Amino acid sequence: MNRIITISREFGSGGRTIGRQVAERLGIPCYDAELIDKIAEEIGFAKEYIVEHSEYALGTNWFAQAVRTRDFNGHSFQDDLYAIQRKVIMELAEKESCVIVGRCADYILKDTPDCLRVFIHSDMESRAKRIVEQYGERNDSPEKRLRDKDKRRAAYYQFYTDMKWGNVHNYHITLNSGELGIDKCVDILASLY
Amino acid sequence: MNRIITISREFGSGGRTIGRQVAERLGIPCYDAELIDKIAEEIGFAKEYIVEHSEYALGTNWFAQAVRTRDFNGHSFQDDLYAIQRKVIMELAEKESCVIVGRCADYILKDTPDCLRVFIHSDMESRAKRIVEQYGERNDSPEKRLRDKDKRRAAYYQFYTDMKWGNVHNYHITLNSGELGIDKCVDILASLY
Repeated sequence: MNRIITISREFGSGGRTIGRQVAERLGIPCYDAELIDKIAEEIGFAKEYIVEHSEYALGTNWFAQAVRTRDFNGHSFQDDLYAIQRKVIMELAEKESCVIVGRCADYILKDTPDCLRVFIHSDMESRAKRIVEQYGERNDSPEKRLRDKDKRRAAYYQFYTDMKWGNVHNYHITLNSGELGIDKCVDILASLY
Repeated sequence: MNRIITISREFGSGGRTIGRQVAERLGIPCYDAELIDKIAEEIGFAKEYIVEHSEYALGTNWFAQAVRTRDFNGHSFQDDLYAIQRKVIMELAEKESCVIVGRCADYILKDTPDCLRVFIHSDMESRAKRIVEQYGERNDSPEKRLRDKDKRRAAYYQFYTDMKWGNVHNYHITLNSGELGIDKCVDILASLY
């Protein structure tokens, strides 16, 4: 039976890094940016299209777009993209043990028996420090970038899952990476596998 | 420097048991029912009075009482009790390393440097099973008892802390004891100490 770890995370909390390190420790793959590629390959959408339309689009209000571009059935490009992401995630989980970061994987795999659902968060200050280190300075303040991204992720999650992002009840474990440190988070998650 | 672990928990999630076992593993005291005694001793309130007026009062709507019994300054017996609990918790944390279960200790000790804030929750089904095992059958269904108690704890917490009970951001770590099991929760918390 495959064992899956899904990681939801606040922007700048180091969730992706934790996911990668846990996967490395356990000798299983971690899907994140790679997931975009897989989606692109499978359905022939250009990578650029997906980056532009997914929750990750910086400077794009995906929610407004999702509403604006709906067809007569209330169906949007974003819905197509979500449906494909969902399919890819379910296939990955069926194929092999792995870590999956983001993209509502916790919700998509909520009925998968051996799936550990994780949420990583941190205080504004350490996240601000981290995103400047990782992604460099921008015109907007780190705090504004964090608020924007969190809002977008929360709206995306709620729209497709009808559940609240970061609600304690959706997860087996939530960890404050700023207080506990990345290494300790990796230790705990690897020990739970 | 004293090291403190505070545990907030949903009724029936095994949070008290986890707290006791962690404390035992670490060789430090765990304060919970003992805390009521300490409060009673210190301020000379009878234990019965405290049991009747604290959030733990079964069958008592403490919130309605808190409002009804306010004096001209909007001050109630519950506020006195909370102020005393707060004082006791702060003194305990100053005196020794310990585990403190419930009573808004996470909020009261939010500025204490070496304090690990934990929230334990679980799904309705395992909690229902647990409270019947631990506290026996009652006239009300286990589900109703859980809902009542959760509502009361959440209202109590919000009233005195102005924060949302069970909000992921208030804690260093949250654990689903139903999914992970009591033993695993104890292991993780002891390893974080």
